[in-house]
Amino acid sequence: MSTPAPTPIGDRVDGRTPDRLREVRITRDWLDHAEGSALIEFGRTRVLCAASFTEGVPRWKKGSGSGWVTAEYAMLPRATNTRGARESVKGKIGGRTHEISRLIGRSLRAIIDLGALGENTIQLDCDVLQADGGTRTAAITGAYVALADAITWGKKHTAVPAAREVLTDSVSAISVGIVEGRPLLDLEYREDVEAETDMNVVVTGSGSFVEVQGTAEGAPFDRAELGSLLDLATAGCEQLSAIQRDVLAAQR
Amino acid sequence: MSTPAPTPIGDRVDGRTPDRLREVRITRDWLDHAEGSALIEFGRTRVLCAASFTEGVPRWKKGSGSGWVTAEYAMLPRATNTRGARESVKGKIGGRTHEISRLIGRSLRAIIDLGALGENTIQLDCDVLQADGGTRTAAITGAYVALADAITWGKKHTAVPAAREVLTDSVSAISVGIVEGRPLLDLEYREDVEAETDMNVVVTGSGSFVEVQGTAEGAPFDRAELGSLLDLATAGCEQLSAIQRDVLAAQR
Amino acid sequence: MSTPAPTPIGDRVDGRTPDRLREVRITRDWLDHAEGSALIEFGRTRVLCAASFTEGVPRWKKGSGSGWVTAEYAMLPRATNTRGARESVKGKIGGRTHEISRLIGRSLRAIIDLGALGENTIQLDCDVLQADGGTRTAAITGAYVALADAITWGKKHTAVPAAREVLTDSVSAISVGIVEGRPLLDLEYREDVEAETDMNVVVTGSGSFVEVQGTAEGAPFDRAELGSLLDLATAGCEQLSAIQRDVLAAQR
Amino acid sequence: MSTPAPTPIGDRVDGRTPDRLREVRITRDWLDHAEGSALIEFGRTRVLCAASFTEGVPRWKKGSGSGWVTAEYAMLPRATNTRGARESVKGKIGGRTHEISRLIGRSLRAIIDLGALGENTIQLDCDVLQADGGTRTAAITGAYVALADAITWGKKHTAVPAAREVLTDSVSAISVGIVEGRPLLDLEYREDVEAETDMNVVVTGSGSFVEVQGTAEGAPFDRAELGSLLDLATAGCEQLSAIQRDVLAAQR
Amino acid sequence: MSTPAPTPIGDRVDGRTPDRLREVRITRDWLDHAEGSALIEFGRTRVLCAASFTEGVPRWKKGSGSGWVTAEYAMLPRATNTRGARESVKGKIGGRTHEISRLIGRSLRAIIDLGALGENTIQLDCDVLQADGGTRTAAITGAYVALADAITWGKKHTAVPAAREVLTDSVSAISVGIVEGRPLLDLEYREDVEAETDMNVVVTGSGSFVEVQGTAEGAPFDRAELGSLLDLATAGCEQLSAIQRDVLAAQR
Amino acid sequence: MSTPAPTPIGDRVDGRTPDRLREVRITRDWLDHAEGSALIEFGRTRVLCAASFTEGVPRWKKGSGSGWVTAEYAMLPRATNTRGARESVKGKIGGRTHEISRLIGRSLRAIIDLGALGENTIQLDCDVLQADGGTRTAAITGAYVALADAITWGKKHTAVPAAREVLTDSVSAISVGIVEGRPLLDLEYREDVEAETDMNVVVTGSGSFVEVQGTAEGAPFDRAELGSLLDLATAGCEQLSAIQRDVLAAQR
Repeated sequence: MSTPAPTPIGDRVDGRTPDRLREVRITRDWLDHAEGSALIEFGRTRVLCAASFTEGVPRWKKGSGSGWVTAEYAMLPRATNTRGARESVKGKIGGRTHEISRLIGRSLRAIIDLGALGENTIQLDCDVLQADGGTRTAAITGAYVALADAITWGKKHTAVPAAREVLTDSVSAISVGIVEGRPLLDLEYREDVEAETDMNVVVTGSGSFVEVQGTAEGAPFDRAELGSLLDLATAGCEQLSAIQRDVLAAQR
Repeated sequence: MSTPAPTPIGDRVDGRTPDRLREVRITRDWLDHAEGSALIEFGRTRVLCAASFTEGVPRWKKGSGSGWVTAEYAMLPRATNTRGARESVKGKIGGRTHEISRLIGRSLRAIIDLGALGENTIQLDCDVLQADGGTRTAAITGAYVALADAITWGKKHTAVPAAREVLTDSVSAISVGIVEGRPLLDLEYREDVEAETDMNVVVTGSGSFVEVQGTAEGAPFDRAELGSLLDLATAGCEQLSAIQRDVLAAQR
Repeated sequence: MSTPAPTPIGDRVDGRTPDRLREVRITRDWLDHAEGSALIEFGRTRVLCAASFTEGVPRWKKGSGSGWVTAEYAMLPRATNTRGARESVKGKIGGRTHEISRLIGRSLRAIIDLGALGENTIQLDCDVLQADGGTRTAAITGAYVALADAITWGKKHTAVPAAREVLTDSVSAISVGIVEGRPLLDLEYREDVEAETDMNVVVTGSGSFVEVQGTAEGAPFDRAELGSLLDLATAGCEQLSAIQRDVLAAQR
Repeated sequence: MSTPAPTPIGDRVDGRTPDRLREVRITRDWLDHAEGSALIEFGRTRVLCAASFTEGVPRWKKGSGSGWVTAEYAMLPRATNTRGARESVKGKIGGRTHEISRLIGRSLRAIIDLGALGENTIQLDCDVLQADGGTRTAAITGAYVALADAITWGKKHTAVPAAREVLTDSVSAISVGIVEGRPLLDLEYREDVEAETDMNVVVTGSGSFVEVQGTAEGAPFDRAELGSLLDLATAGCEQLSAIQRDVLAAQR
Repeated sequence: MSTPAPTPIGDRVDGRTPDRLREVRITRDWLDHAEGSALIEFGRTRVLCAASFTEGVPRWKKGSGSGWVTAEYAMLPRATNTRGARESVKGKIGGRTHEISRLIGRSLRAIIDLGALGENTIQLDCDVLQADGGTRTAAITGAYVALADAITWGKKHTAVPAAREVLTDSVSAISVGIVEGRPLLDLEYREDVEAETDMNVVVTGSGSFVEVQGTAEGAPFDRAELGSLLDLATAGCEQLSAIQRDVLAAQR
Repeated sequence: MSTPAPTPIGDRVDGRTPDRLREVRITRDWLDHAEGSALIEFGRTRVLCAASFTEGVPRWKKGSGSGWVTAEYAMLPRATNTRGARESVKGKIGGRTHEISRLIGRSLRAIIDLGALGENTIQLDCDVLQADGGTRTAAITGAYVALADAITWGKKHTAVPAAREVLTDSVSAISVGIVEGRPLLDLEYREDVEAETDMNVVVTGSGSFVEVQGTAEGAPFDRAELGSLLDLATAGCEQLSAIQRDVLAAQR
């Protein structure tokens, strides 16, 4: 977005143009113990992603010869603007938490060859330290980095064959939405609240869709609107995919 | 299936063509106590939908002047081919149940004017008595009928003004998916298991989207595939919408 | 009750005489997946009974050579006149639910030869779709039909020997009570609420008692009252037993 | 057991005749804090009964002008021969505990005039310190003593009018059963395990029934057997009623 | 405390001097079923301690050749002056209960040679029947007696070698605190509430510390105060240790 | 630790002398939303402390005119070397978590004038992002900084009078222990595991004790050992107190 003249119509809460990501930062190896980890930031949203590699699989996969990848998402109580009660204190996990955990797990399993992983399990933990919109998409994008490093670890320290490709592609995710009639990329919290339609899109490095979840919060949407949201998301994920590649290419 | 010439390309598990719904039946007023109710069947899938109208709203909406619509989805233990444990016995609600309950609630709130409802609550209960694929889409489609009747009840028995439109549109839902490379409408269980991509689409009577939830179970999907799935779903929901209209137009 | 002259003293809420059952209907094989199932109706009370046959027994019976039969009872939230909260949402099962589940299990175990069943388990699920008094007695009566069919299934599809009698008798149940001083058979909800004494009686096909649970809701009761309630119940169960026999004798 | 001549037909596990209670001891005011309390012993069975009087009633009774009496039953983990897990640790209350708590509550409400109690609540806690059969009947019998003392306390310290009768009668309970074909009174644990039929009977001081709960554990039972069990229970409760009267008549 | 002249400065709520224990009573074998048991009283505080000996160890100790000792503490609802809700009914264990259970377990493991116990488990249950301050210290002191008897039982009835010392020492505990500036031994409830500093001290029979838990409830405390509290506690535990010795030396 | 000559007596796992803290870092205002926050690091141990200021108090303090301070401690699943299950997933909070949460709350209440706070609540959340020993002491030390900032916030944005001292002192905490017979300050995880005695000490800025919790993990300890541990802890907290002072004095 290098348009020379100022186009006020493109200005958003933080001055971004509609098709612009917030600043994205990925700090690889933020943790000392985990087999893979990354602190990912989409603007003020910060998610700590840890990948734990363990030999063996859950009981229902024993003897199958293939592995398992699963995810848990959670939010620290004061990640948000007003404090939320801990789910551990309430004694049960809310619907939103369940939904996002399942989404992350499915998204990462979509780009992994569970057979190549062998009977090993990778557990992803995505903990939101600070929330400002887009926590689930940041979580998926960061979890991919942690997952890739955990697989590398597994190849070095366990029986996972080093030569075999476990990852079949990369994966990233972004939110898009229609706010005051305009399609916008990577909504921050204040935009998300006002969005008429809100969509989370999970895209592989090669540009195919893994998940498309669009919800009309206000007015229902039509095919044309859906199309322009998908265009935005595809372009956004292309950028995220490049960032992931750079991070993983860096010397540790 | 009375087409004279055999069209092998159209054949599915039960002989339907790819763009054909299973037999849909809606038995209105299946329950005696509820303010609105419907037993809906999509082939062998049977969901009992009840709408309970109560005056008053949850605490967080008190004084707002507007109402609330919420939903709970559940499955009887032997709705499925092998018995599942009851969530009441396990002491917690699973992620899938949470996810579907939230989807149903959002879908129905999308076509209701909560302000016109006044400070009243409608609780939808969608209980799957028998499952053969498409339980969440059957639930949304049946819940709409129960909801419409509960609103009529509210206009007759409470302070909801009879003249004011509470429903802004109708809503129905259908599943679509790609099985062995072919886009199919209204998957039954055996098809659902084999689908590479599975999508649930919620559409208003006027043809706009309320929810689009597409998931790559196997290979990721591209824009073209997404397009043909949406075409199928739009056409399917048009038929469901007509059935809903007929059912609600009938003398009780 | 063929008394020629009208006796107003015998009239009840719905016009029945004191010793008359409500209309009883049993729809066998209401479900497609279960090994045995029945939708039973006592007037407006409707209970869906499913019997699930599984090979193997709970851990504490392993190696015993004998089987197990157990039951779970539950009510849909809008089975009743005002909606009740789901026990799955509350995260715990209430005392009444526990009590009735245990009663159903004991009643059916009373007429089964667990040794003849071999190391197999039959799980009964009795879900009240609509409640108007007598749900636990309808559940026992319907569960017997589902159980009998599940045993037949087991003889055909598993190692349960076809020649051996697994059922030692049949079983049915009915409620009786004293309302305004009069003993009545098969109380509907409005009668149940007003009953001074309420009794549930479980009787075998051959006329012996399996359970007698009498409770003084208002005034305590004496031996004479207890006697007339047992007379009513015995006669009522005789009729239920005949209905069960007819249902099970029918061609499927 | 001072019968001069040996009567082998009357001999039981502990040498009692079939119609004989175990030694019953009631230690009134075993606790210092409770408004009423009693440690009751039926042989080796020991139940600590506490009655807590509090002003006010649960929300659903507010403004009704009448009070409430409720009960909770529990067992210490090592009350039994082998240690049982604590329900607090398991995080849920079992069916048996629920069932007995409800029975105790109903039994005591049967002999109380809740209107005379005014808007006050009496909570009964029956904790089994040691179990050897008959814990629920001991609990009811002991709880009556605690309840009576709590009412006396309420008359002295609160607005409950001293002149008005709150108790309409007394209540006690005993177990009876058929063991090896013989009807027996007050089963101890070893007898309870072997009983073909097991019955708990709750009787008022004036000899009417509050609850009759008979269960065929082995063979179903007939009217004659039911009759002889009720005879035994009625006689047993008459003795318990006399003991309660003596205990409450004693100077504190 | 045999000081000849009355020293009013030493008078406490119940007339004790600052360094005086309440009357301590230990009734060994209060239960018939447990392998070891004791009802311990510190004044009006009464705790029932049961030790259950079972062969085998929890999964994480299997094959280790050594045993395990663990404890659970709980309070009856009316142990206290106003009734508390049952943790089983609340469905979760409170922080205080957890904390004390862990303290009791650690204290007893400190004086046991788990290797000498072999692969056996002793579960201690400390149930507070009446509370008047010092329940956790009474629990530890009484649990030691129950534990010692359970070990004796194990040597007689299981493979625990009779000749090998399983107990390496004895253990007892007492509370001390600073009330109105004065260090006091063995606080009763009214003193505990007013204490500026409250300390629980667990001491072996040979006079070493197992646990020192001091908490400033009001003003923080200094080294000198800490010192005088430890002096009091050491002297108090010496007396408790002597009582334990006498109780265990008595003929059963 | 670049001393050229080997000093065996001073050497620990990481080369520190026995009386030396690990590197301590406090990043104030790590969070954007919280009224006060600090990321505190004791070597590799990292705890995120957030203080949430809300007007109003829990029900039991309403009308008292004074405020409330409470704390919750938790650990991310992969904070530790091997992943631990989430307490939210398990549905209950463990004893250790409860114990530490209570300790943090008491420690901070010890240095606050709840009356001066007025009817306001400060909730402290201490979430361990990475654990390497000493998490509870780091939590207390960091929580003090967050608390102080939240009070400053309250004075600026609410009715808390700016002129009144709410904090009566500062507070910090450190662990000490005896490892291979030597008293050590600030144990890291590997030392903690081997410690014979482990003690957590909470000290005010002015040098008094708020909590002393010493536990013999191996051999019981005597007065002399206790004394040297308290000396180490007092000196360590003096340093922590200076760091807190510097952090809070810095321009934000």
